[in-house]
Amino acid sequence: MGFAAASAVTPAGEGTWSAGIAPGWDVSGKAHGGYLLAIAARAAAAACRRPDPVSVTGHFLRPGRPGPVTVTTEVVHRGRRFSTVRAAVEGGGATLLAILGTFSDPTEQAGPVRLAGSPPLLPPPEQCVRLGLGDPFPRVFNERVDLRLPAEDAALTPMEGPLRLAGWFRFPDAEPVDPFGLLVAVDAFLPAAWRSDLAAAWTPTLGLTVHVRARPAPGWLRGAFTTRFITGGYLEEDGELWDSAGRLVAQSRQLALVPRP
Amino acid sequence: MGFAAASAVTPAGEGTWSAGIAPGWDVSGKAHGGYLLAIAARAAAAACRRPDPVSVTGHFLRPGRPGPVTVTTEVVHRGRRFSTVRAAVEGGGATLLAILGTFSDPTEQAGPVRLAGSPPLLPPPEQCVRLGLGDPFPRVFNERVDLRLPAEDAALTPMEGPLRLAGWFRFPDAEPVDPFGLLVAVDAFLPAAWRSDLAAAWTPTLGLTVHVRARPAPGWLRGAFTTRFITGGYLEEDGELWDSAGRLVAQSRQLALVPRP
Repeated sequence: MGFAAASAVTPAGEGTWSAGIAPGWDVSGKAHGGYLLAIAARAAAAACRRPDPVSVTGHFLRPGRPGPVTVTTEVVHRGRRFSTVRAAVEGGGATLLAILGTFSDPTEQAGPVRLAGSPPLLPPPEQCVRLGLGDPFPRVFNERVDLRLPAEDAALTPMEGPLRLAGWFRFPDAEPVDPFGLLVAVDAFLPAAWRSDLAAAWTPTLGLTVHVRARPAPGWLRGAFTTRFITGGYLEEDGELWDSAGRLVAQSRQLALVPRP
Repeated sequence: MGFAAASAVTPAGEGTWSAGIAPGWDVSGKAHGGYLLAIAARAAAAACRRPDPVSVTGHFLRPGRPGPVTVTTEVVHRGRRFSTVRAAVEGGGATLLAILGTFSDPTEQAGPVRLAGSPPLLPPPEQCVRLGLGDPFPRVFNERVDLRLPAEDAALTPMEGPLRLAGWFRFPDAEPVDPFGLLVAVDAFLPAAWRSDLAAAWTPTLGLTVHVRARPAPGWLRGAFTTRFITGGYLEEDGELWDSAGRLVAQSRQLALVPRP
């Protein structure tokens, strides 16, 4: 099932929305985090009747299993430009995810542009490794996304300094990536921290924040992810997504738990 | 009034806490953002009975005025290591701030350490400019914090590339910076974006996320702040706080609105 259908929400009473964790959108039986965030954000945007996420933070509480879920929403503030909503996803009798998000219409505002950064340099997608089709990355839900990494990144070649990983992202079958798809994309790559043997294991996400700067142009997205600080039992991962027009469309930051030795 | 007293919360019924925006903790009559976030986080931590914030995100809805406020809290999840709480600060009949936070005890966990970054190089505090005591920065609530910047940073000297600003932070009168004080510190510096004439004006914070990595050691904190992307009507500011023992104690990221030309 494609992303739009798999993340759709339908009204189910005052501030409540029905949705489902679709088969194949899980990783070893656990709902993909960015996908679950996208479901919650769709419901929150519907609740405040503003189409575009501007800043969404989710805290992951329990793994979600494929099957029906309910999203409860509360509009905390309706402003002239922005509305702020909190929401929670419930499934299997438990709360899986809590989010706080601000929404607008449209995301992109006129204004000055100054960029100290640019899209990652990548070989063309057809020269990259497509993840998940029979390779050793079963955690990647790769029939649902088309994720392509340069050979060094796909091999998780260890590196000095900041740990970085970059690559291409799109949905299969030319399905467009809407602003909610960006929430999936920032969480779809392999963890950059896997390029260190200190954290080359499951690093569960505690919280994920995504800022959306613009609706992406059609075509491939380029993503670049960096982990600089593994300390105190935690690590951060900062992400950038750039669209095919070369625009920064989203930034992300997550806090993840470092596996204990 | 010192930080601990100015940010104290007292129980006021099921899930509800009384607090106040103390005089002097405002900037031109508006409650300082990080300070308001600290009040909300204190109530949230009290609600879940876990002392240390791990990741806290606040979305700022309306300016807070000095005077009494109420914090309503809801514990969304109680786990073995972490509890997640949402809270809202109300004052003057309106909701000022909504937060989502995860709390733990203690913040710092054992684990591997790998740092691709270090504290900013700064002249000693006595060779820096103390902000706010009669200088042109009235927005800084400088009798409440002791904030010192190198001359170039204090002068907001324009720069190429990423916009950076760094300096020293402590509370006056040797008041220790507890983990909630870190929420003030990440929002206490001048905006790094002010080193560009594109955004050298009031840049209201839409959302602020703080990750706490460790309880700070006594003494000065060093803070470093960077803005790389001004686009789409928004800018991000990423911060790091380092304690006197040279440890990374917090990271922050905020999304702010770029003033319209």
